[in-house]
Formats: sequence, structure tokens, C-alpha cells
Amino acid sequence: MRFHQLIQNAPGWKTLEDETAFENPFLEVHLVNVATPQRPEGAHWSVIHRKGACAVVPITEEGNLVLVRQERIPVRADLWEFPAGQIDTSAPHTPEIIRETALRELQEETGYELAPGGELIPMGKFFSSPGVTDEHTYLFCARPVVLSPKGTHYDASEAIAGARAFTPKEFRDMIACGEICDANTLSCFARLTALGLL
Amino acid sequence: MRFHQLIQNAPGWKTLEDETAFENPFLEVHLVNVATPQRPEGAHWSVIHRKGACAVVPITEEGNLVLVRQERIPVRADLWEFPAGQIDTSAPHTPEIIRETALRELQEETGYELAPGGELIPMGKFFSSPGVTDEHTYLFCARPVVLSPKGTHYDASEAIAGARAFTPKEFRDMIACGEICDANTLSCFARLTALGLL
Repeated sequence: MRFHQLIQNAPGWKTLEDETAFENPFLEVHLVNVATPQRPEGAHWSVIHRKGACAVVPITEEGNLVLVRQERIPVRADLWEFPAGQIDTSAPHTPEIIRETALRELQEETGYELAPGGELIPMGKFFSSPGVTDEHTYLFCARPVVLSPKGTHYDASEAIAGARAFTPKEFRDMIACGEICDANTLSCFARLTALGLL
Repeated sequence: MRFHQLIQNAPGWKTLEDETAFENPFLEVHLVNVATPQRPEGAHWSVIHRKGACAVVPITEEGNLVLVRQERIPVRADLWEFPAGQIDTSAPHTPEIIRETALRELQEETGYELAPGGELIPMGKFFSSPGVTDEHTYLFCARPVVLSPKGTHYDASEAIAGARAFTPKEFRDMIACGEICDANTLSCFARLTALGLL
């Protein structure tokens, strides 16, 4: 796994050493030594490389938000989350590929698709844990969405118990009480709110 | 590294196999086989174990928000973030230990501390990337905060270029334009907003 295009050694940054300590198809652990503007002599660090991903806020014609209920093995729990998925290509992540991934995950996980004339609004990206990984997710708002004749199509590795539309008040209450607790969905809500989309 | 107390095999969940594939003081990679309610035959998964952490929203008496500017080696960038740090104890994470960690990170990274009579408001926790890691962060709002006579005290491994207070409008604009792009800070903003604290 290589540097993502968006992560580059800007002036003052230089990768001095980079050893792959573990790798499988899902993640790589690298032990690096990196010179930084504040640490020109270099700093040793453990870095987890992960694929980039997309997450989508589907808003229905009634103004409700569609979440999926997904089993998350690392935390041994079902979570309500916005649909999301990794960008599964070694090709450069062009804006077109990123948008295609977002629209595919929307349809496959929720069974909804962008309505004719609907818009897929980019809401930037975020890093899930920049102290340890380059994992990042591109965020979008899709509105309005309508039920797709294609239905859902889950990856073999996923376990999604279903999708449901929630009113903005229900959604906000689920964030306030902690029921919504994954970074993708919380970050989507942050950007939706700051951009005035909700 | 063991299961965090908050992550348990609830009814329907069972860890069938758990092999440590890589470990160092900062992370562990486990290859597991876990039976889940929807996958009772078991599912193989790569899981990264990480320590739990705390993040704090410091709000000054003027109603401004204090952020720190931190070098993040995995993404080769300086980011504006709320102060945060890992819970560095193998003891059970009691509410007291979690609060102490939050208050310590607040003071060490920003040079601010909770004012006499101020309150440290819990805002729940979140998972940074629950599809691959059990890493979780407990979120707090500290208000009001005042400059501490102790000043800042950075960990040797950290590189913080400084702290600054931003108005709520500046902060919201930094989220809208994507300048704020880490899950801790975005999740803090989501909970602050949903709880009506901002």
C-alpha cells in the first residue's frame, strides 16, 4: 500500500525510514522515522495504512435521514451508521471514482439511490485517527434519495441488518444520547450542521 | 492488550479464535474469528487494539473554544484539534480515571484548566473506525476554562505548535471548509451541537 495522493511530504517533512512490520489485504503497519518541521532530527512512529473510504448522508424527499444497522466485529456491537465503504481500486482516487464509490455504497447498503435531478454534495474529508493512521473518509450528502429498483446488495463480508429513515430530531437525539457513536456518522453530522445542510 | 471493559461479547457474540499477529506498545493487530448474531458460524476479521482516549472541548469565559495545533505524522500535516490523549493505565477505566485523563490533557496541551466552580460535562464516547479497531474516545466539555499557572507540558513524543482560542463562528467555519478534519474534533462538535452546548 502506497502513500495516498492526498498525503504528501510537504516542505519540512521527509520520510527518513519506512519499514513494513505487518501487512494483509486490510491494513499495513509501518514503522517510520519522519523529519517534521518541529522535529527535523526525525521522530519514530507506528503508522497504520488503510484504504480511503466514502460515507454518504442520504436525505429522503421528506427530509429524513437513512441509516443502516451494521454489525461491527472489533467493538462487538450493532451500530446505526450512515452507509460507507472503502475505495477498492489501486487507481488514483479521482473525484469521479470517489463519487462512484459513494453512490455505489448508498445503493448497495440502503437500497436507496439519488433521485433524478438530485445532487451529491461533497462535504470534504476527515481522518479517523490521525495520530496513528492515514485512514480517511470522503463525506457526501445525497438529496433527495428514492428507493432504487435494484434494492440492496451487501458485500459477503458485511452484515447489515437493514436500513431505516429517521427524522432529523430522532437523528439528533441518537447523537445526543450516544447511540450514534461512530466517527463517520458523527463527522457527517458535524459537516452537515456547519454547512447549513440540516 | 485485553478487551476494554466496554467491549464485551453480549448474547449472540462469541470469540472463537484470537491470534496476535503484531504487537508493540502502541497497537496490536489480532486475527479473530467471531460468531455474531447474523453470522453464528463465525467471521474472520482483522482487529487493531488501541488504548482508549479522552478529548476535551475547552470553552473560555468569553465563550471561545481552545484548539491546539499538532503535528500528525501518519498524515504528514499540522492539524487544529481539541486537546486529547490516551488513558495510560492498565487499571480499569473508572469514571474518575477517565476524568483525570481529560483534565490532565486539557492542562498539559493547552495551558488552560477548569476554572474554580467550572464543570466537566461528559458527552459520551465514540469509536474512531469500528470496522477495524476498538479505539474509542471519551468526550468532555470543560467550561469555563482559565489559563493555568502550570502552563503547558507536552509529552516528549508530541509536537504541539501552540494553542489558540477561536470564536464559535470561526470554529464552525473551520469545520465547514474542511480545515478541521480529525474525528475527535468533529465528533466533539457533533455532540456539543446535539446536546445544545454550543
